[in-house]
Amino acid sequence: MRRVYNFSPGPSMLPLSVLEQAAEEMIDVHGTGQSAMEMSHRSKYFKPIIEKAEKLLRELMCIPDNYKVLFLQGGASLQFSMVPLNLAGVEQGEEKKQASFIDTGIWAGKAFDEAKKFVNPIIRASSKDKKYTCIPCKFSIEPQDAFCHITLNNTIVGTKWHYIPDTGRVPLVADISSCILSEPLDISKFGVLYAGAQKNLGPAGTTVVIVREDLIGKAPSWTPALLRYDIHAQEASLYNTPPCYGIYMISLVLEWLKRSGGVEAIMKINQEKASLFYEYLERSLLFHSPVVPEARSLMNIPFINGDKELEERFIREAETVGLVNLAGHRLVGGLRASIYNAMPIEGVQKLITFAEDFEKRNTHV
Amino acid sequence: MRRVYNFSPGPSMLPLSVLEQAAEEMIDVHGTGQSAMEMSHRSKYFKPIIEKAEKLLRELMCIPDNYKVLFLQGGASLQFSMVPLNLAGVEQGEEKKQASFIDTGIWAGKAFDEAKKFVNPIIRASSKDKKYTCIPCKFSIEPQDAFCHITLNNTIVGTKWHYIPDTGRVPLVADISSCILSEPLDISKFGVLYAGAQKNLGPAGTTVVIVREDLIGKAPSWTPALLRYDIHAQEASLYNTPPCYGIYMISLVLEWLKRSGGVEAIMKINQEKASLFYEYLERSLLFHSPVVPEARSLMNIPFINGDKELEERFIREAETVGLVNLAGHRLVGGLRASIYNAMPIEGVQKLITFAEDFEKRNTHV
Repeated sequence: MRRVYNFSPGPSMLPLSVLEQAAEEMIDVHGTGQSAMEMSHRSKYFKPIIEKAEKLLRELMCIPDNYKVLFLQGGASLQFSMVPLNLAGVEQGEEKKQASFIDTGIWAGKAFDEAKKFVNPIIRASSKDKKYTCIPCKFSIEPQDAFCHITLNNTIVGTKWHYIPDTGRVPLVADISSCILSEPLDISKFGVLYAGAQKNLGPAGTTVVIVREDLIGKAPSWTPALLRYDIHAQEASLYNTPPCYGIYMISLVLEWLKRSGGVEAIMKINQEKASLFYEYLERSLLFHSPVVPEARSLMNIPFINGDKELEERFIREAETVGLVNLAGHRLVGGLRASIYNAMPIEGVQKLITFAEDFEKRNTHV
Repeated sequence: MRRVYNFSPGPSMLPLSVLEQAAEEMIDVHGTGQSAMEMSHRSKYFKPIIEKAEKLLRELMCIPDNYKVLFLQGGASLQFSMVPLNLAGVEQGEEKKQASFIDTGIWAGKAFDEAKKFVNPIIRASSKDKKYTCIPCKFSIEPQDAFCHITLNNTIVGTKWHYIPDTGRVPLVADISSCILSEPLDISKFGVLYAGAQKNLGPAGTTVVIVREDLIGKAPSWTPALLRYDIHAQEASLYNTPPCYGIYMISLVLEWLKRSGGVEAIMKINQEKASLFYEYLERSLLFHSPVVPEARSLMNIPFINGDKELEERFIREAETVGLVNLAGHRLVGGLRASIYNAMPIEGVQKLITFAEDFEKRNTHV
């Protein structure tokens, strides 16, 4: 049994100790004689699991009391529909409301496209002309906007918002799928935060939504029941059967993060991991980072040579030494190392050692 | 480590050998050096897993080639929205289409209520006046109905359709959440079949939808992307990140079912298990089945005494000997044994032995 270092953008690595605990508890968790997979979601066995997941998330992220934490399904893609529906949806026949979107990449664009069905979305700023290698620094929105949507970390292009924009009384909504729990975040600056679990939280199939209470309850009457924040909030995420095992795994990952010192501590490790790799890219003769220094992501680091054949060889050879999933997103090409919380520093070091060796074999100075 | 017999209506028991295999493969599945939980859904590692799940499901259920198999999220509850939207949704301002619903219990009623948002649903038959203890035998629908919806097995009240109604050219849609793979089913009689995984397929959080190809592509333009069958069908369930680990677990459960002889073989065991318990109820002085014999479910067996205190004592005492989750649904009370595919016959035998002993201690003949 040989574990690889998995640089996948998601689903991605989980802490080995968490996986070992899950394996150990697979046929009998907490002395219940059941797997966490077999538990009725309304049983006394599952209740402490979902409650622990919420309690730990609140504690680790310092979530204020006037925010609800929901464990849902459908990933960020379903939030692209749920956010406009719940914050600004109107009854059939009524005029659509206006909402602001900041275009910082492909996922931000998908959120914008989907929102057109339910609101009148307006792009207030874009880094498209810079090939999304930076974050727009200035933009203004209108006070009547129902919300302003940003993608806090851009998984594909490897940028992150290096500041939290001030949107005044207009609720700020952020997709934090690929940066949740990677560094501290002032939740009170946001109206809604959402994240698919499959990067820093657990397995794919669970979505965490953190929503300020005053924003709940505005969905129009025709909204599908499962897409309504108010129903999920009233029922404490148990309106229908939730992804119980995913929530159990999230509770284990959060326990691991707490044991590891919490978000401040993991941020320092994340900064160290990212610095090591960005420093390698600075001195590399083969690869460079396309992203401006101030907007570089701690989680997703694209790197480019431009010679497709060489990049593919890098991916193939890396795989033979246990460094997998290093291809860039299919829409942008190049290479990418996603180094989420669960990627050990040894994985990054091994990648750099491999890359330096690859470079020696492939440059003729 | 003491495994219990878990009579939960769902999430529910999984085969022990499947859980053991999952535990064993948790940190390295198929020699990939990764957990099935950590795999990028677009990687070459995950592709064989989702393909195997679909192939086995098609084989075990004899699904004709002109049906798509989709692995989605949101459970049956989201299908309550997706079915009317995809089969009969209209553009805003257009007149709603008409659809037929047969009311055989609480879940059938929920499907009807949700459908009102998108179609004009009409209840063509109901067993409500019989407290849902039977299945309506005769009903007629109208040829212009967009579809006819039934709940093939009624988890709460413990009935099942003992015949497949002939709806002519009107597509028959069935919620098969609590009976999928429990006995053979002629798929060609249906337009759409759907099932949450958490009873006979795997962990909660994955939904299987089987849809005839000619019914795909009719959703109105405002349908949320994740609620469109056409998008999921075009992208082979990979439009967004699917619940990868759930799909992996489903593939293991399907392998187990194939090893166990397939659906015909499991039907015989299911019939034997159910017969044992219904026969016990026939001779019991304490408990009886509320359901008419011809409509009795193989999967969910409610049983009633009527004395709430005695029923609660039964549940409590059963738990002490490792027989858990025997309470009836909170809306109907009483007791219920859900005995899905993964419940061994020994579990049913142990329940009967316990019940007979309980009866001796609680009857004074």
